[in-house]
Amino acid sequence: MQTKFLKTKEIYDGTQLRSQFAYLEHRILGDSVVAWIGPCHVSLDNMVDGEDFLDQSSIAGSEMVHFIIEYFNQSLFSGVLLQRLFANIIRDVIYELSPVKNLKLLRQGDDIYLSDKKLSISIATSSPISTLIHFAVNVRTEGVPVPAVGLKDLKVSETEFIKKCLASLKNEFESSLTATMKVRPVE
Amino acid sequence: MQTKFLKTKEIYDGTQLRSQFAYLEHRILGDSVVAWIGPCHVSLDNMVDGEDFLDQSSIAGSEMVHFIIEYFNQSLFSGVLLQRLFANIIRDVIYELSPVKNLKLLRQGDDIYLSDKKLSISIATSSPISTLIHFAVNVRTEGVPVPAVGLKDLKVSETEFIKKCLASLKNEFESSLTATMKVRPVE
Amino acid sequence: MQTKFLKTKEIYDGTQLRSQFAYLEHRILGDSVVAWIGPCHVSLDNMVDGEDFLDQSSIAGSEMVHFIIEYFNQSLFSGVLLQRLFANIIRDVIYELSPVKNLKLLRQGDDIYLSDKKLSISIATSSPISTLIHFAVNVRTEGVPVPAVGLKDLKVSETEFIKKCLASLKNEFESSLTATMKVRPVE
Amino acid sequence: MQTKFLKTKEIYDGTQLRSQFAYLEHRILGDSVVAWIGPCHVSLDNMVDGEDFLDQSSIAGSEMVHFIIEYFNQSLFSGVLLQRLFANIIRDVIYELSPVKNLKLLRQGDDIYLSDKKLSISIATSSPISTLIHFAVNVRTEGVPVPAVGLKDLKVSETEFIKKCLASLKNEFESSLTATMKVRPVE
Amino acid sequence: MQTKFLKTKEIYDGTQLRSQFAYLEHRILGDSVVAWIGPCHVSLDNMVDGEDFLDQSSIAGSEMVHFIIEYFNQSLFSGVLLQRLFANIIRDVIYELSPVKNLKLLRQGDDIYLSDKKLSISIATSSPISTLIHFAVNVRTEGVPVPAVGLKDLKVSETEFIKKCLASLKNEFESSLTATMKVRPVE
Amino acid sequence: MQTKFLKTKEIYDGTQLRSQFAYLEHRILGDSVVAWIGPCHVSLDNMVDGEDFLDQSSIAGSEMVHFIIEYFNQSLFSGVLLQRLFANIIRDVIYELSPVKNLKLLRQGDDIYLSDKKLSISIATSSPISTLIHFAVNVRTEGVPVPAVGLKDLKVSETEFIKKCLASLKNEFESSLTATMKVRPVE
Repeated sequence: MQTKFLKTKEIYDGTQLRSQFAYLEHRILGDSVVAWIGPCHVSLDNMVDGEDFLDQSSIAGSEMVHFIIEYFNQSLFSGVLLQRLFANIIRDVIYELSPVKNLKLLRQGDDIYLSDKKLSISIATSSPISTLIHFAVNVRTEGVPVPAVGLKDLKVSETEFIKKCLASLKNEFESSLTATMKVRPVE
Repeated sequence: MQTKFLKTKEIYDGTQLRSQFAYLEHRILGDSVVAWIGPCHVSLDNMVDGEDFLDQSSIAGSEMVHFIIEYFNQSLFSGVLLQRLFANIIRDVIYELSPVKNLKLLRQGDDIYLSDKKLSISIATSSPISTLIHFAVNVRTEGVPVPAVGLKDLKVSETEFIKKCLASLKNEFESSLTATMKVRPVE
Repeated sequence: MQTKFLKTKEIYDGTQLRSQFAYLEHRILGDSVVAWIGPCHVSLDNMVDGEDFLDQSSIAGSEMVHFIIEYFNQSLFSGVLLQRLFANIIRDVIYELSPVKNLKLLRQGDDIYLSDKKLSISIATSSPISTLIHFAVNVRTEGVPVPAVGLKDLKVSETEFIKKCLASLKNEFESSLTATMKVRPVE
Repeated sequence: MQTKFLKTKEIYDGTQLRSQFAYLEHRILGDSVVAWIGPCHVSLDNMVDGEDFLDQSSIAGSEMVHFIIEYFNQSLFSGVLLQRLFANIIRDVIYELSPVKNLKLLRQGDDIYLSDKKLSISIATSSPISTLIHFAVNVRTEGVPVPAVGLKDLKVSETEFIKKCLASLKNEFESSLTATMKVRPVE
Repeated sequence: MQTKFLKTKEIYDGTQLRSQFAYLEHRILGDSVVAWIGPCHVSLDNMVDGEDFLDQSSIAGSEMVHFIIEYFNQSLFSGVLLQRLFANIIRDVIYELSPVKNLKLLRQGDDIYLSDKKLSISIATSSPISTLIHFAVNVRTEGVPVPAVGLKDLKVSETEFIKKCLASLKNEFESSLTATMKVRPVE
Repeated sequence: MQTKFLKTKEIYDGTQLRSQFAYLEHRILGDSVVAWIGPCHVSLDNMVDGEDFLDQSSIAGSEMVHFIIEYFNQSLFSGVLLQRLFANIIRDVIYELSPVKNLKLLRQGDDIYLSDKKLSISIATSSPISTLIHFAVNVRTEGVPVPAVGLKDLKVSETEFIKKCLASLKNEFESSLTATMKVRPVE
């Protein structure tokens, strides 16, 4: 899995969640995760979470860390599980980087909360040729339409956060793939 | 996903990690997780972890909580990811139940450690008709061939632990499956 | 499998045969079958049966019972087989409900006939995330462009018919899935 | 799909339900269905239906028509559906051939009954390379351990029955495969 | 696999690389390969090779032999391998038909070269219901935007070439499918 | 794909064609190809080619180059295609290394011939967790039960041959996988 921290500040508007965004926009070929910092405004048309669509939720934030993960030849169910593992990874990275004492973050499904404040949004979906995940973590919370918390509140450096998340996800993904190749089948 | 806490004290010897153990031994049909408390002695013949097999590791423990998870129509890669998510769930359950202050458990791949002491063993594999996971957590550490820690050391009740793990895994599995059915595909 | 009898009278125009019609229009999440009574007018653009498209068949009826079936994580081949099993179920339900003596309905592939009169139209297809079936049975035969027969001719109540078909399909689908989980694999 | 009516009278003992029985025993390569007439005695070891195994059911009959179906590159779920479609085909063939008036056969799952008498036994399973179905229909009912009915009781010629069943299954299977290739995908 | 040599001279513009081109345009149902002779002009919008798209390569030729291969129920990875096997077949057919002495054609991935001159272009992709390959071989080299060689230069008759390529691909494809059905699985 | 040229001279007896031979015997984890030089004697029990089994062919050779290829998460059909591509690669390597003038080798399916003399034997099969290929090329022809030719006859150095085949297969496999990740899907 290739990792890339983009220096762009582009808005995440939902159109980045498509097959080969990393390859066609950033020449990163194969299984990949790319990250950048930017605002978030997803229109109803580009909302892939049916639940958000039905609730006409607005998905927005003035500054978030965005991750787009794409990998090939696996199922959507694996995508949902990897998305949730990544939520745990993010939590562990924040525990490691934040100076806040007795910090307790709760993961529920693919969401991360600090008590009732939302830290992140996320969706896993599939294209005809790949599995795709968007995971975004608030940096600041201006413009977020629900009670929210951000990396700034937790005194976590975004760049440190991104670097550790990319490295940890890469390791998790690759060691998981390897684990499928060193096991003996049973009856 | 059906869950069952067995009152048996049977030895886990590796033969329980086969398709339809839950159905043929305990009449639990379909996706399932069964748990029980018992010793662990896996012979080289029944070792499905190639790495353990090569290292001729002995896998043993005098008293462990065993979980056997089986589910159908999904890939081994999803099995490895679910196994790791379950390791995180186990960690969260221990954090919730243990009175030990400032407890820090580390998950690495599918293993859980308290500093350099091993809390658990685990393997995910596939049968011709299903995906299978064995996850075992030390209750006591007598007989464990490596530096180890157990639920007794952490002052965690095994029965509370099992009940919470079963409920949490069932919820994680079912909500993950549901998540694959409420997303809109992308290009 | 969730079942739902909609009280709407909407026209079936082919656009209902898309992924998550049940979820996004009727908040029914997961494997599902929804039924309603309404006219049928499918334009060439929305025709998914290549054969009809080539023959420029018009697909129309003034009043039909419509079923939209959607299920996840299975193949199109299974969709075609389920579609044909459903044709058999429909035939059995009509035999049960119709007072007509010595009624002989013929199933050929996914079509049902009374001698040379067509009772139904149907198609099975796939979306990127699911398998989909549309099955429609004539209530009246006005506007049907081929020799046709309808439930009215057979003195079958549409509402009884729909309820029995939904229950029977749900049972067939769920017991078939269960059957894949209670079998031992062979060499 | 190749079809073959074997003139052998061999006992069905469960070992015929394995991959490439048709090829290695009868040189029929590829998707196939082979049929023959013979007794049936399946030992507990060769029982692949978990339910029968648990109930320690004995599976036996003095004279039955046996069908072994094998096909490649498809799922077990499709196998269960094809098995049930084949039960319907068998029912239709008997309706066509039997001179008995007002005959009413009931299909329930993969079983066929005349009121409470069982006409058939069947199982669908998978090998590492194929999907397999055994379907057996009583000719005589001596030795059947449950209330039973046979083709003799229904005055149906076994050879006519076999020929029609083979032709009809071949047609169903091939036209179902073709149906997956002439449909346009949807969103 | 059905084969067809079309007498049309239509331009290949990339839109022919879609599911059921053979069926909906030429009534050839199922696994198929169709061939014709015509110019080639693919606009950026219809370019499916991400690499060409990124490089803004123009894909053009005044006269080429075009092959569109479509088959069902297999993976894109198999499509790439079949595409490369077909490149080898093409090379062997040219060796057989060309009177040029000591001809040495080089296959690299899916490309065929005569020293540094390109003979062919090709892409394998997938639709939601099938695997698709476009393979095109220069007849003349006018208008080709890179150093090129064509069948005319090699003194190979296009019609002989097409007939032999179609027959050889059909044989390769069908015997490969058969090979998956006559092997015994291993542990 | 990892490649390894083993210095062992072990007999190939068919038991090496099993999942994780490379990992459990040679600690090579993941997609791999291993090669060695040694005799070949496969007993009927270990013959996985159904055709050989039926014909009771003896598979033997006094000295052959053996390749065992294993890769994960792909289909048997892809295995057969890769096997045939590898036969072409082997032919090209021999053309490159042999000083014999006007050498013409014929590939037919997975076999390579010099006129009517057989150069190689091969089989592709699947284990529950992987796709496996055995490809063996005669070095000497003593003990081969059919008319045969070997690398010695063609004046090709076995070690050069092995090194070039390993490098070329690795390149073919990896670039084919990559090709599945840089294409845009079509309708």
